[in-house]
Amino acid sequence: MSYPFLKGHGTENDFVLLPDHDGSVHGDLDPARVRALCDRRAGIGGDGVLRVVRRDGLWFMDYRNSDGSLSEMCGNGIRVFGRYLVDEGLVDPAEPLEVDTRDGVKVLTFDGDLVTVDMGTPKVLGETEVSVPGRTWTATHVDVGNPHAVAFVDDLAEAGPLLEAPTHDEAVYPDGVNVEFVVRRGAAHVAMRVHERGSGETRSCGTGACAVMVAAAEVDAASRDTAYRVDVPGGTLSIAWTADDRILMTGPAVLVARGTTDL
Amino acid sequence: MSYPFLKGHGTENDFVLLPDHDGSVHGDLDPARVRALCDRRAGIGGDGVLRVVRRDGLWFMDYRNSDGSLSEMCGNGIRVFGRYLVDEGLVDPAEPLEVDTRDGVKVLTFDGDLVTVDMGTPKVLGETEVSVPGRTWTATHVDVGNPHAVAFVDDLAEAGPLLEAPTHDEAVYPDGVNVEFVVRRGAAHVAMRVHERGSGETRSCGTGACAVMVAAAEVDAASRDTAYRVDVPGGTLSIAWTADDRILMTGPAVLVARGTTDL
Repeated sequence: MSYPFLKGHGTENDFVLLPDHDGSVHGDLDPARVRALCDRRAGIGGDGVLRVVRRDGLWFMDYRNSDGSLSEMCGNGIRVFGRYLVDEGLVDPAEPLEVDTRDGVKVLTFDGDLVTVDMGTPKVLGETEVSVPGRTWTATHVDVGNPHAVAFVDDLAEAGPLLEAPTHDEAVYPDGVNVEFVVRRGAAHVAMRVHERGSGETRSCGTGACAVMVAAAEVDAASRDTAYRVDVPGGTLSIAWTADDRILMTGPAVLVARGTTDL
Repeated sequence: MSYPFLKGHGTENDFVLLPDHDGSVHGDLDPARVRALCDRRAGIGGDGVLRVVRRDGLWFMDYRNSDGSLSEMCGNGIRVFGRYLVDEGLVDPAEPLEVDTRDGVKVLTFDGDLVTVDMGTPKVLGETEVSVPGRTWTATHVDVGNPHAVAFVDDLAEAGPLLEAPTHDEAVYPDGVNVEFVVRRGAAHVAMRVHERGSGETRSCGTGACAVMVAAAEVDAASRDTAYRVDVPGGTLSIAWTADDRILMTGPAVLVARGTTDL
């Protein structure tokens, strides 16, 4: 069976999109098919699959990790999802777009090449520690729908090759944690590396960038709505913490290929 | 500019194919475009690009490495190239197919899902040594159009993580060397890992598999035309050294996606 696909990325977090508007192409997506599509050598390659389907009058982002498992939400993926809907003429980019996800309805807005996602209200949950062999840092525990530990460092190389997950407090993070290492680049400007639980070090993590911005704004006692520039290895995001306590993440979303596959 | 592409692989050595039969689409392919296409996150992703073009009455495989540099020949790539021509109905799979490359004209034959490539005459050039930190092996120097050092080991894990190139005799290999580590699996059956100069450890190397077969056949004093099974991390190849001193490599070639890109 041959079916349509697209490939795209947001700050080099990349996805295979499967248009399936009425749900008739894929039904319940087989985890083995997700793994085959995401295989970077035997397949098309991606960090995950975004199935595009209508559900209860909204566009629903059916997101799967590259290992075939379900995931609630993906901050980079949802921008690429929105880019697809705009490029196909399925939505009006002049209007806010509601996208349904397993983490609830998210609102996207479009400004040329950039897409802004309302990532909801963050929780700052105090201090913890993270370690790599021979080194330990104090870190800020931030929850942005998923758990993060944000450690400020003097140099991003300090954390070493990150071939394994940094160790963390199992009592604080019983389900594991995403760990961010951050350096200052200037006023309201930081750069980060991230180790994602289950994925290892990646080129970008949307929720991780939001957690980093929140931790930095707390230290800075920044006034609300200050836009922070957050450099990730795969690009740059702009993130603001609004007066009504929500995180708005703005970044690029690009579609690079479209066609058919029989994977 | 949007233009057609396909993606395929041979034993998980993967390629972006660019149909450009009359040379009008790409002309002389820009190295920056090759790098963009082969980028596994911001692009389509591949170990190299195969531009498909007619030249002097033959199909010419314009092969580029993922870094944009030119390469003479690719044993896995040329099978995928042949698969494309057959699938498109451009050649008759019942007939031997001559494909022009920068290493001269190669002959392909087709048998269902399998493609056989005449890889030419190998040269066995004596013994040398290769080392990884803390360990040294005697290796056979085999030239199959490019230089190889084949080391028999008791266990493929012996060579360690191969994060860096094994050290070799610079006088024997002034331009570097591809290093294969091989174990016996049975009669005329071996398994290998390969570290390719310029690429690191890969899932498959067609010329490396040929070099391994030649070294094993020499040790075995195997009769000519014996088909060896060579297991690589990405699949299995069947390789025979013929009575008229040529290497025939047989393996799979799969196209997984086709479409358009504007990279």
